[in-house]
Amino acid sequence: MNKRSLVGALDIGGTKIAAGIANANGPLARVTEPTPKSGTPDTVARQCIAMLHAACDQAGVPREAIDAVGVSSAGPFAQVDGMLGLASPNICGGQAQSADLPNDWVVIPLEGPLREQFATVAIENDCVSALVAERTFGAVQGEPNCVYVTWSTGIGFGFCVDGHILHGKHGNTGHAGHMLMSESSDALCGCGNRGDLEALISGRNLANRLGQSTADVFDAARNNEPAARAIAEDAARWFGRGLYNVAVALDTRVFVVGGSVWQHHGEWLLPMVRRELDTRMHALTDGVEIVPARLGGLVADFGAFAQVMPQEWVQGWREREAWKHEA
Amino acid sequence: MNKRSLVGALDIGGTKIAAGIANANGPLARVTEPTPKSGTPDTVARQCIAMLHAACDQAGVPREAIDAVGVSSAGPFAQVDGMLGLASPNICGGQAQSADLPNDWVVIPLEGPLREQFATVAIENDCVSALVAERTFGAVQGEPNCVYVTWSTGIGFGFCVDGHILHGKHGNTGHAGHMLMSESSDALCGCGNRGDLEALISGRNLANRLGQSTADVFDAARNNEPAARAIAEDAARWFGRGLYNVAVALDTRVFVVGGSVWQHHGEWLLPMVRRELDTRMHALTDGVEIVPARLGGLVADFGAFAQVMPQEWVQGWREREAWKHEA
Repeated sequence: MNKRSLVGALDIGGTKIAAGIANANGPLARVTEPTPKSGTPDTVARQCIAMLHAACDQAGVPREAIDAVGVSSAGPFAQVDGMLGLASPNICGGQAQSADLPNDWVVIPLEGPLREQFATVAIENDCVSALVAERTFGAVQGEPNCVYVTWSTGIGFGFCVDGHILHGKHGNTGHAGHMLMSESSDALCGCGNRGDLEALISGRNLANRLGQSTADVFDAARNNEPAARAIAEDAARWFGRGLYNVAVALDTRVFVVGGSVWQHHGEWLLPMVRRELDTRMHALTDGVEIVPARLGGLVADFGAFAQVMPQEWVQGWREREAWKHEA
Repeated sequence: MNKRSLVGALDIGGTKIAAGIANANGPLARVTEPTPKSGTPDTVARQCIAMLHAACDQAGVPREAIDAVGVSSAGPFAQVDGMLGLASPNICGGQAQSADLPNDWVVIPLEGPLREQFATVAIENDCVSALVAERTFGAVQGEPNCVYVTWSTGIGFGFCVDGHILHGKHGNTGHAGHMLMSESSDALCGCGNRGDLEALISGRNLANRLGQSTADVFDAARNNEPAARAIAEDAARWFGRGLYNVAVALDTRVFVVGGSVWQHHGEWLLPMVRRELDTRMHALTDGVEIVPARLGGLVADFGAFAQVMPQEWVQGWREREAWKHEA
């Protein structure tokens, strides 16, 4: 078989892992399993490799045909023997604030074990990977100055400046959901901060504070229930201030917003969010666009594929809108 | 004469402009003049060119020998006919909040007129240029993930991530001094924001609020005058929170801090600033260094030179510590 006749994609989250394989025509097979939480520290990486092999078996293609693997993973990352590992608090018990994970992992290896199996390995955190997906197939194709932001259970960012996807010293750029925004709020984030953006508006933290689901709060707000409306307007304002902070730091041209909150309520929230951008520092904010993400639930898979797929496959995938077909 | 036998440097501020020329051995001549504030919109650019020529005359070298010019300028920038112009509120009356500038300039051309005279032109805002200087000659030589920040009359940043100096859609990255940090402070910034980092701690805004110079406040704080001490500790805390916000966004490894406040009080402020970094998000903040800028008052000149000087000159300038000699 030719080199890179197949590429693999891994989507590693706190709850589940998805492994997919694809060829020039698009995805061929996809398997998902719960994220392992016990065993030796290399359990997660070993399961990822086994799942890629299972996807090959399912598609009836030889396992050796996978030449490159892209990974979209929950962060943050840390170094293990000079390569990227995971220090994610929802996988590694040694990083978690609570004691409900049945392991004491501090950092688990990822890049190392994958490189032993595959010639090319690329790893990005989930929001950076989503940005790669949206730049390759979605809302910001080819845009040099753009930011992906998810408003969902958490708040995360991926940055592209001057056409460069930003990584940082350990691949951990984009954790701007943990920017401190309020000095007086007692809203508590999973990271321990009070008053960071994620504490103030993420789905998890809003629900913790309000004792009801974020979806219920936003639905009530849109039905003009006053208390819910005040909460939602407040959240929109914080989100807008967060985007403004990023725009003045990075001179961004386009924000691509994904995640469940924006997917369901983005059109309704947009004018409130825009107000925080449009009334400040015109030299930087004039003309800044806010657009919805396009790739939906498959953004992680396609971001992982896009990191490693041959450039000559891209146009065909775009024309076939490969993300609209079941693997 | 050989190509690039001379390079020019411009330092454009709200009060004065400095123009220097240099060859392989270091700076040769430097002239300064007040920044013009009246006339046609191209007055500033024409004066810059005349000053570079005057520096040549002063050094006894032909004006045509300047092949490349680097610029360190007060921002923000805006586009003029597809090239960079200045929209600085302390130069352009059309951008200023107050009415004390005798012009109605909204954007003045800079890159265009310079390109008509010089084969190579590079323009960075003053903090980005300072970062280039510190990466080339100063505290962070060769460091791929570093941030310059000045704590002075204003607060400004320059970002380097993965070895790339960041510019953004109009060259305006680094305006993170205008990040919103406090939702309850009524501290007012020149940009109109309340509670942004610059409003809270810049020399200009602290002095406006307190009715005495920032230098006096910090001196009193170090003499344990309780009210001054509370103000200085508060400022250190805000500065630390600002660095933290940048670090989680960009996964920075080193902060280089310049500006008059840090130059005089940095050692005393450092432990208070570090506390805000060291108690949060260890996966991103562990090992982050904060170091003082090294190039002092000539950082703008050397940043401007460093943008355009031939790479083969760099080592010689380093060995001679060219910034320690009068041009």
